[in-house]
Amino acid sequence: MTVVKSTLSDSARETAGEALQSTLVDLIGLSLIGKQAHWNIVGPRFRSIHLQLDELVATARTFSDTVAERSAALGLPPDGRPETIAAAYTLPGSKNGWIKDDEVVRLVAETLEAAIGRLRERIEATEKADPVTQDLLIGITAELEKQRWMFEAENWPRD
Amino acid sequence: MTVVKSTLSDSARETAGEALQSTLVDLIGLSLIGKQAHWNIVGPRFRSIHLQLDELVATARTFSDTVAERSAALGLPPDGRPETIAAAYTLPGSKNGWIKDDEVVRLVAETLEAAIGRLRERIEATEKADPVTQDLLIGITAELEKQRWMFEAENWPRD
Amino acid sequence: MTVVKSTLSDSARETAGEALQSTLVDLIGLSLIGKQAHWNIVGPRFRSIHLQLDELVATARTFSDTVAERSAALGLPPDGRPETIAAAYTLPGSKNGWIKDDEVVRLVAETLEAAIGRLRERIEATEKADPVTQDLLIGITAELEKQRWMFEAENWPRD
Amino acid sequence: MTVVKSTLSDSARETAGEALQSTLVDLIGLSLIGKQAHWNIVGPRFRSIHLQLDELVATARTFSDTVAERSAALGLPPDGRPETIAAAYTLPGSKNGWIKDDEVVRLVAETLEAAIGRLRERIEATEKADPVTQDLLIGITAELEKQRWMFEAENWPRD
Amino acid sequence: MTVVKSTLSDSARETAGEALQSTLVDLIGLSLIGKQAHWNIVGPRFRSIHLQLDELVATARTFSDTVAERSAALGLPPDGRPETIAAAYTLPGSKNGWIKDDEVVRLVAETLEAAIGRLRERIEATEKADPVTQDLLIGITAELEKQRWMFEAENWPRD
Amino acid sequence: MTVVKSTLSDSARETAGEALQSTLVDLIGLSLIGKQAHWNIVGPRFRSIHLQLDELVATARTFSDTVAERSAALGLPPDGRPETIAAAYTLPGSKNGWIKDDEVVRLVAETLEAAIGRLRERIEATEKADPVTQDLLIGITAELEKQRWMFEAENWPRD
Amino acid sequence: MTVVKSTLSDSARETAGEALQSTLVDLIGLSLIGKQAHWNIVGPRFRSIHLQLDELVATARTFSDTVAERSAALGLPPDGRPETIAAAYTLPGSKNGWIKDDEVVRLVAETLEAAIGRLRERIEATEKADPVTQDLLIGITAELEKQRWMFEAENWPRD
Amino acid sequence: MTVVKSTLSDSARETAGEALQSTLVDLIGLSLIGKQAHWNIVGPRFRSIHLQLDELVATARTFSDTVAERSAALGLPPDGRPETIAAAYTLPGSKNGWIKDDEVVRLVAETLEAAIGRLRERIEATEKADPVTQDLLIGITAELEKQRWMFEAENWPRD
Amino acid sequence: MTVVKSTLSDSARETAGEALQSTLVDLIGLSLIGKQAHWNIVGPRFRSIHLQLDELVATARTFSDTVAERSAALGLPPDGRPETIAAAYTLPGSKNGWIKDDEVVRLVAETLEAAIGRLRERIEATEKADPVTQDLLIGITAELEKQRWMFEAENWPRD
Amino acid sequence: MTVVKSTLSDSARETAGEALQSTLVDLIGLSLIGKQAHWNIVGPRFRSIHLQLDELVATARTFSDTVAERSAALGLPPDGRPETIAAAYTLPGSKNGWIKDDEVVRLVAETLEAAIGRLRERIEATEKADPVTQDLLIGITAELEKQRWMFEAENWPRD
Amino acid sequence: MTVVKSTLSDSARETAGEALQSTLVDLIGLSLIGKQAHWNIVGPRFRSIHLQLDELVATARTFSDTVAERSAALGLPPDGRPETIAAAYTLPGSKNGWIKDDEVVRLVAETLEAAIGRLRERIEATEKADPVTQDLLIGITAELEKQRWMFEAENWPRD
Amino acid sequence: MTVVKSTLSDSARETAGEALQSTLVDLIGLSLIGKQAHWNIVGPRFRSIHLQLDELVATARTFSDTVAERSAALGLPPDGRPETIAAAYTLPGSKNGWIKDDEVVRLVAETLEAAIGRLRERIEATEKADPVTQDLLIGITAELEKQRWMFEAENWPRD
Repeated sequence: MTVVKSTLSDSARETAGEALQSTLVDLIGLSLIGKQAHWNIVGPRFRSIHLQLDELVATARTFSDTVAERSAALGLPPDGRPETIAAAYTLPGSKNGWIKDDEVVRLVAETLEAAIGRLRERIEATEKADPVTQDLLIGITAELEKQRWMFEAENWPRD
Repeated sequence: MTVVKSTLSDSARETAGEALQSTLVDLIGLSLIGKQAHWNIVGPRFRSIHLQLDELVATARTFSDTVAERSAALGLPPDGRPETIAAAYTLPGSKNGWIKDDEVVRLVAETLEAAIGRLRERIEATEKADPVTQDLLIGITAELEKQRWMFEAENWPRD
Repeated sequence: MTVVKSTLSDSARETAGEALQSTLVDLIGLSLIGKQAHWNIVGPRFRSIHLQLDELVATARTFSDTVAERSAALGLPPDGRPETIAAAYTLPGSKNGWIKDDEVVRLVAETLEAAIGRLRERIEATEKADPVTQDLLIGITAELEKQRWMFEAENWPRD
Repeated sequence: MTVVKSTLSDSARETAGEALQSTLVDLIGLSLIGKQAHWNIVGPRFRSIHLQLDELVATARTFSDTVAERSAALGLPPDGRPETIAAAYTLPGSKNGWIKDDEVVRLVAETLEAAIGRLRERIEATEKADPVTQDLLIGITAELEKQRWMFEAENWPRD
Repeated sequence: MTVVKSTLSDSARETAGEALQSTLVDLIGLSLIGKQAHWNIVGPRFRSIHLQLDELVATARTFSDTVAERSAALGLPPDGRPETIAAAYTLPGSKNGWIKDDEVVRLVAETLEAAIGRLRERIEATEKADPVTQDLLIGITAELEKQRWMFEAENWPRD
Repeated sequence: MTVVKSTLSDSARETAGEALQSTLVDLIGLSLIGKQAHWNIVGPRFRSIHLQLDELVATARTFSDTVAERSAALGLPPDGRPETIAAAYTLPGSKNGWIKDDEVVRLVAETLEAAIGRLRERIEATEKADPVTQDLLIGITAELEKQRWMFEAENWPRD
Repeated sequence: MTVVKSTLSDSARETAGEALQSTLVDLIGLSLIGKQAHWNIVGPRFRSIHLQLDELVATARTFSDTVAERSAALGLPPDGRPETIAAAYTLPGSKNGWIKDDEVVRLVAETLEAAIGRLRERIEATEKADPVTQDLLIGITAELEKQRWMFEAENWPRD
Repeated sequence: MTVVKSTLSDSARETAGEALQSTLVDLIGLSLIGKQAHWNIVGPRFRSIHLQLDELVATARTFSDTVAERSAALGLPPDGRPETIAAAYTLPGSKNGWIKDDEVVRLVAETLEAAIGRLRERIEATEKADPVTQDLLIGITAELEKQRWMFEAENWPRD
Repeated sequence: MTVVKSTLSDSARETAGEALQSTLVDLIGLSLIGKQAHWNIVGPRFRSIHLQLDELVATARTFSDTVAERSAALGLPPDGRPETIAAAYTLPGSKNGWIKDDEVVRLVAETLEAAIGRLRERIEATEKADPVTQDLLIGITAELEKQRWMFEAENWPRD
Repeated sequence: MTVVKSTLSDSARETAGEALQSTLVDLIGLSLIGKQAHWNIVGPRFRSIHLQLDELVATARTFSDTVAERSAALGLPPDGRPETIAAAYTLPGSKNGWIKDDEVVRLVAETLEAAIGRLRERIEATEKADPVTQDLLIGITAELEKQRWMFEAENWPRD
Repeated sequence: MTVVKSTLSDSARETAGEALQSTLVDLIGLSLIGKQAHWNIVGPRFRSIHLQLDELVATARTFSDTVAERSAALGLPPDGRPETIAAAYTLPGSKNGWIKDDEVVRLVAETLEAAIGRLRERIEATEKADPVTQDLLIGITAELEKQRWMFEAENWPRD
Repeated sequence: MTVVKSTLSDSARETAGEALQSTLVDLIGLSLIGKQAHWNIVGPRFRSIHLQLDELVATARTFSDTVAERSAALGLPPDGRPETIAAAYTLPGSKNGWIKDDEVVRLVAETLEAAIGRLRERIEATEKADPVTQDLLIGITAELEKQRWMFEAENWPRD
């Protein structure tokens, strides 16, 4: 017996559900490695990037909540447990110990670029399946692309 | 060469650092499984517990930030990466799929009880090493014990 | 002579206008029966559902304003008069006298499910006619589906 | 068996209940036709009256909530369903399609005048039955008479 | 020599003063037993009633301040000392140790019913003596009757 | 031709109108002499009374607005012109030049006592004519009596 | 013996004092006739001008406070009593009974023009005597000239 | 070497970039001529339209920021220099000297109509190229169409 | 069967529980006699002390809530019923009727001194038993000692 | 016939008007090139200067509004149209395409220096003509000199 | 090589710089001795003056920031080091140990009088050199003269 | 005769008093040299460090107030006069004239390190004497160690 009934067909729900679950993993992962960099950054741009990373984390947290609740709204229980994130998260950017500010900027720009590439694929995949889910993914992409530009601009000139 | 110099002796720093790193893992883990339950809870108490869990998550996030920055302030880079949390987190409470409200309340009460037991040990361990770190751990314990009581009270009568 | 000129073709305007007018009726109806339940609910979950219903009413009121003003913006006078709502409103959920909390939860979940089904049809219908109207309907659907999930989750286990 | 026990005698409760139920119908009706005019007004005073009507709607919504909850507090389930409003609402002011600003001002002044006349009768009727209900009706009358004056003043010189 | 001169006749002042002093005792008592229940409640409705009781306490505290200052304004020093409350407070509702949520709801509904009955008598008693005091008592009654309804509705079905 | 139509009979309107116009004069006068004392007070209690007088002025200004708009709502144009206030204001309390703090406290207490006496008469006079106006006058009296008590209490021991 | 010692020479203080006292009279007068018009205005621009007048009154009240306290700061007790305003106020603009909106706009523009002319003279008069007082008068003039423009612009085309 | 790398193909980026740059020019132009009218409007509707124009300017400024940053996020430097706006802005609505309120309303309605027509073309043009950019343009269109309706409604009856 | 399980040993819990329960009694008593003085104070310092007492009451109320919830968190139901306070409260400071400001200041300083003395003993008593409870008592002592100093300073020169 | 009458002589008005119109052009230009740099800046100081530029733009926008309304208040219609700004703006600082952060800092410092030089001339020019206008220009100069210092300090050591 | 270039001539800059540096010393000194009195005051007016002194300190701190940044804006590094303040501060008012409230009021009034006398000289000195600096000094004088009056008024009757 | 009585023994009070007085000197000194650097910093990190220093100053000011009032609460008048700070302040960090950003970061990190070392000694010294004072010093140390880390991290790599 279904716990939360869906308003979509089974195949549409599956497509949307996969897009949402993988986005959830990316966003939670992003929030964790964003905080990791927020705490471990060193260098003359410490304060500026330290603050910028907190905005990135806030964005990732807010969107992860929306994405998970969207999944639940479609009748699919979202999975954001530590072991799931550790197993499924494939974006670059995680690094242990103090990190130089230049490297933080470069890493975050790369991570965001990878995350956006995956989101663009999910936007296409969900167009027919569920325009409501697609609209949410478009909104996330817009915000992450804006944040990526800021790290890119900060990363100039690239070595 | 040390990146961030410490104001503690090496052994005191080591003791305080271990207490802080393991507390960090517990708190990040708590924030993740708190959100997991926030999204997957079902049952007649859905709304009430759904909201209460968000307060728990907010508490866990705020304290994890304070704990990680305290570690950095002692010259020890904190580690809050997804793989670290997945590997080091040992508290109960993680569960996949929809969860009945009764079970959520019971699980969270258990998780908090375990977390508090570990914090009490760290309070003792850091008393000599660093009273500043100890004071922070005392504050976290006070708040988690308050939240545990609320889930305990909600969990009555226990089956 | 046209009072407010439209920026759409006549047929596109007609399609969008119909979608908006029927959505307006659903939303005003929803706000009225949401308040009705808010006042008449009894049972051990009184306070929790009483508050949740006010959020539903606030959502329905805000969206009904947006929908009506979108209709006006297209040059079509919206109709939200009492007699229109009474005549055109076809969703379930209206009930006289005290209502038990379980029944409120079940009724609201049903009402929202019906409302969402109709919105999904209008999203398709307006895709070619007016993407601006479609985008508004997508946003309403996202929010109502989220609220439906909450009542569904609260409605578990279903008798 | 009574659901919500009353603190009034049966006849006092009946008198107060009738006054409250008919006031509820008037206020919900007022909020709907206020919004209708808010959306459909045209003419050089559009913005000014458009905003003023939203204050009237906010007043009517707030008071309708207070009135309905007062009825519930007396043990009488209030009835604010769409079909009830459509059937019981007898004030003037409802009009379909675009409405010229002059006419809006005139119509609202008339509607308020009629509503106030009915409230004054209910103030007298409830004096003995329930001074608490009477006090609420006095407060509503004070506010509606203030709003009526503003539309009256705006309506000068009358044609 | 009078400390604060009164603007009422001696007998009117005495009538109003008695009504205010006994209301003060009821309200302070209500605030104390409301907090007592807020701290000692257990059961599945813990969080919901725990929060509702804090609104009741806030109401009782605000009104006790207004009532005491009204007494002072009439030239009569109010008496809200611990020993006075303990001696003069006669409403039900006080209970030691953990209390089950069902019992809390039932007790508070009873307490409020008793308090309202006494207030209704004072409304009559002060009508001639001092309409300003009467108006204050009417306002308190309106609010307490509203809060009583909420506990009554939550208390359904009564065993 | 009447500019703003009244909802009262002619004689009731006359009674209510007189009560409101004379209250308006008292309140505007009170706001002016309150400010006069606020600026000219000297003595060791300067700051404390200086601040208290601003609360009195704020009260008098807010109520004068409500009273004047109530008069307009009854179809009677209020008169708050400088020459009217100067001619009609008969309360004590006006004084030129620096004023010692003791004298300010004594003067304000006297002024408020006189104002309240007049308000009590108007409460009686308007009971039959217009309970809505009476209710407003009761509210003003409650607030002014509270403020009078504070100045009285501050004025102890009286010389 | 001087109550509040001045930091200016006697003649400078006299010049500044006269400028401040006459400005005080103008501003209090302006606040009173602004409110008078706010209450008595009728016509199709009622709401718009009704709100604009309240901004004028707020400006006049704030500046009258600053001007009176500046006078006190120079050791000169300001005089803002009703009888002083009535005797010394010479600006146009006072009018009894309902006033048509066109006339209100015209009257206020005239009043402000007269007030500004007098302020310009005082700016010149205080330049040598006290640049601190002059700076305050310049600030008042800037604001009143801005408000005058708004009424002038609203007054176009002039009949 | 590219300064900010794009996540789109070259042709998609060119299409989106052109749509964004021309929208930027329209919005900055709109904000400038909106302020121009805000300052130069005269006539009996001065205050009402003066305030409405500031809302239009705020909208145009906020959207111009979003549009320019979206262009940067795609790797294309936006151009909002004075000379660019002057050269590229082609919407009607610019006018020197005082402007009668009727003419302001008419001009703004025309300007918005032209701006919306161009936005509708860009919505179509960007559908394939970049749904994220399209979604932003849809949001801008929704808001400008709402504002256009308000000026249209205010412009009735058209001469 | 234990309702709320404790995380302390039985003897530690007993020690901490006694300290918390007696502190709770002191703080509720303090809040009641603080309000008593707030209402009954007379004399030239009325306003100043009247306001200061409300800050003391707010402090006492906030801390009593924290202390009671800490007791519950340790598994011990707190007791704040009127009869308990009346029986267990042993601090000085309670007084009936109007009180002269000098006496209020002296009484409150004495009451706080006694309360602090008892808190200092409980700080020692709980050091081993429960450092979390001790930390809370230290925080309360810091605040009460600050408030005591203010009344002491105000009480100078002592007669 | 004059639309808005001036309170200055013709020659004084001309002098003040020229100063205001040229200041308006400078400030609007400054707001546009400030935004241009805000969007196009790249380099390691991206975030810091990006934010600082938005404060500059906010300053320029606020002052341009004040300056334009001051001109209108003097009876002179301000001119802030795109073509006027493009033709009359002569300050340096405009640049197309991405700009390196060092260059942005240098350009803005230069632009502000030029703007301030022109303001200093207008302060002298308006001293006799209109001290009210002069006071406004002094205020703008103070703020721009502060912002110039910040860019100068950031620009050190200069190459 | 100059670090921050000035927009003034060398001699004007020197004059303005001296006025600013000596004002900076006075204001920092004032903030320190204001806090000293805030902490050490005793006597029946403790609370009232304790609070008033914090407003004085807030004023002195805000102005010292503005003055120092104005100096920097003129290209002159301000000097607010402890040793500079101790060496250059010449105003009265510093006192060790507890201070009776009467003496605090007298001392602060004297200190402010001395500070104002020095500011008046600097206003004259900077008139030609830099009207922007002069305007700032005028604003500081206005505020300090207002605060001086309040202490003077509180200081009456002087012994 | 003691002005403010202490709740500590004489020797405990002396120990706590010395710790508080020397902490007060350090914190006031820190606030002054923090502002000095805030005003005189130059270099590419100007804005970032300029803002960070203001947070340090706010921290130092808030803690200096708490420390001084704690001293007063123990019956010991705190001494924060300019001459005391200049004589007793021994931390590094004071520097005249413009300071390069790198040097500011290095100086502040050193100053904080020295201040923290002294605080750690006082934490030990006050443990027996007064745990309330110790707890305050622990809280200050936690915050200053956090701020020190931020400057340290910003100071990497150290030359």
